[in-house]
Amino acid sequence: MTVMKMGPAAIEQFLRAEFPQAFSGDDIRIESADGRTCVLRQRYSDRMLRPGGTVSGPTLMSLADFAMYVVLLSAIGPVGLAVTTNLNINFLRKGAPGQDLRAEARLLKLGKRLAVGEVTLLSGDSDEAIAHVTATYSIPNT
Amino acid sequence: MTVMKMGPAAIEQFLRAEFPQAFSGDDIRIESADGRTCVLRQRYSDRMLRPGGTVSGPTLMSLADFAMYVVLLSAIGPVGLAVTTNLNINFLRKGAPGQDLRAEARLLKLGKRLAVGEVTLLSGDSDEAIAHVTATYSIPNT
Amino acid sequence: MTVMKMGPAAIEQFLRAEFPQAFSGDDIRIESADGRTCVLRQRYSDRMLRPGGTVSGPTLMSLADFAMYVVLLSAIGPVGLAVTTNLNINFLRKGAPGQDLRAEARLLKLGKRLAVGEVTLLSGDSDEAIAHVTATYSIPNT
Amino acid sequence: MTVMKMGPAAIEQFLRAEFPQAFSGDDIRIESADGRTCVLRQRYSDRMLRPGGTVSGPTLMSLADFAMYVVLLSAIGPVGLAVTTNLNINFLRKGAPGQDLRAEARLLKLGKRLAVGEVTLLSGDSDEAIAHVTATYSIPNT
Repeated sequence: MTVMKMGPAAIEQFLRAEFPQAFSGDDIRIESADGRTCVLRQRYSDRMLRPGGTVSGPTLMSLADFAMYVVLLSAIGPVGLAVTTNLNINFLRKGAPGQDLRAEARLLKLGKRLAVGEVTLLSGDSDEAIAHVTATYSIPNT
Repeated sequence: MTVMKMGPAAIEQFLRAEFPQAFSGDDIRIESADGRTCVLRQRYSDRMLRPGGTVSGPTLMSLADFAMYVVLLSAIGPVGLAVTTNLNINFLRKGAPGQDLRAEARLLKLGKRLAVGEVTLLSGDSDEAIAHVTATYSIPNT
Repeated sequence: MTVMKMGPAAIEQFLRAEFPQAFSGDDIRIESADGRTCVLRQRYSDRMLRPGGTVSGPTLMSLADFAMYVVLLSAIGPVGLAVTTNLNINFLRKGAPGQDLRAEARLLKLGKRLAVGEVTLLSGDSDEAIAHVTATYSIPNT
Repeated sequence: MTVMKMGPAAIEQFLRAEFPQAFSGDDIRIESADGRTCVLRQRYSDRMLRPGGTVSGPTLMSLADFAMYVVLLSAIGPVGLAVTTNLNINFLRKGAPGQDLRAEARLLKLGKRLAVGEVTLLSGDSDEAIAHVTATYSIPNT
């Protein structure tokens, strides 16, 4: 059974308080978070693009890593710093310029010490993934 | 749109003819394959276990790699040898001894040169994944 | 035998001309590039840090991806856009604030269609890696 | 500073006692193990091959996973079961039939809870890697 410890509003409040530089909340919105999955939307900005006009790898990796953190917060609540230990990304298609990004994250395992999840990254309203990520977080002792 | 080039029966026939040593078809059954996904079931055998009684990593990696090949065949038909170029596996839970293994594969991308997919590995009838794999195949020029 | 197609100066000139936004050359210096390996140094900036004062994951992923591109250019010359298809990163230790980053890249394979390499990321003058990356690039037909 | 807890002879003795089915010691020899690196050699067998005559992926994944376990034992001694949590493999070149395999493992990080390492897999006496692996082990509390 999945228990949700924090919902979107509580997570946004936590992130604004703890990480004001990183999460102004203006460009990334948490659309849902339920202790097992979350959906984020990142507003399009020219800064996302790399030369050639496609969405840059670091933009996608950042968003995926952040989505994993959000789904983890929704599952375990505002515990101390969890850190990413492994991230594997497959780049699948070019993201279209001018389109928002969406990240759909899902926990594959929530253990005492490690959480593993996958994140599908999408462009605009397309349902074809532009990248797919699996990531592992190490959860500090509490 | 997904076009299926080979269904389960055609794939099994192809594998028996081309790889008789590897695919006797007695222990692994292709339950479905539709050009985008496939489901395999591997009959339990003591040889799957590693010391300690859990399903061994190589057993899971082999089954996942094979499932990727099956879904690829279902999508592109019996073309020459596709080869795995990358495989990433996260081990999530212990597989139970005595239980069959199931592999659910899904193509994330089917390009001209590369195919990327993910495989969820399950034990018995549980719906909790025991491992999760992403893999890339290189498709030969045809 | 390794043949070097471009050295550090030629690569920097190419990058400034082709990707002026991305490579101003002020913060990242190519210390060496010989067709098989390269070494980059990225000058410390507060923008590298994430909350908590450690070097952010995206900073490390960006630098590693860029180092792979540089070693590839040194091996194959200024061909059209190579794209990253897979990147796997293990985060090992915290990078120290105030320290430059170094990236040591090495080609593991240079094929006609795919190049695979590994990148060790280091902080300051320490020889203990803070992260380790393997990445695959797809090389366009020429 | 690296401290070696077990050398090759002690590790082989431990493996024979604990995992007699898995490590008969006839086909795999531990050539060195020093708490930070190890070298294994696996004697050639036709069972290593997949159809087409190249070394199979599962053979390489098994050997790499085992090499990581050996280097970990050499570093931390005969503690309880460490388990692989993530393994990422890049297949680089075909291994030649008839040739022994070599695995050169190196710890990238030895933490209290996680150990990360890389393994280079080679065929015969060639110094060109046929595959490259990074893997993470979870170390049980002691």
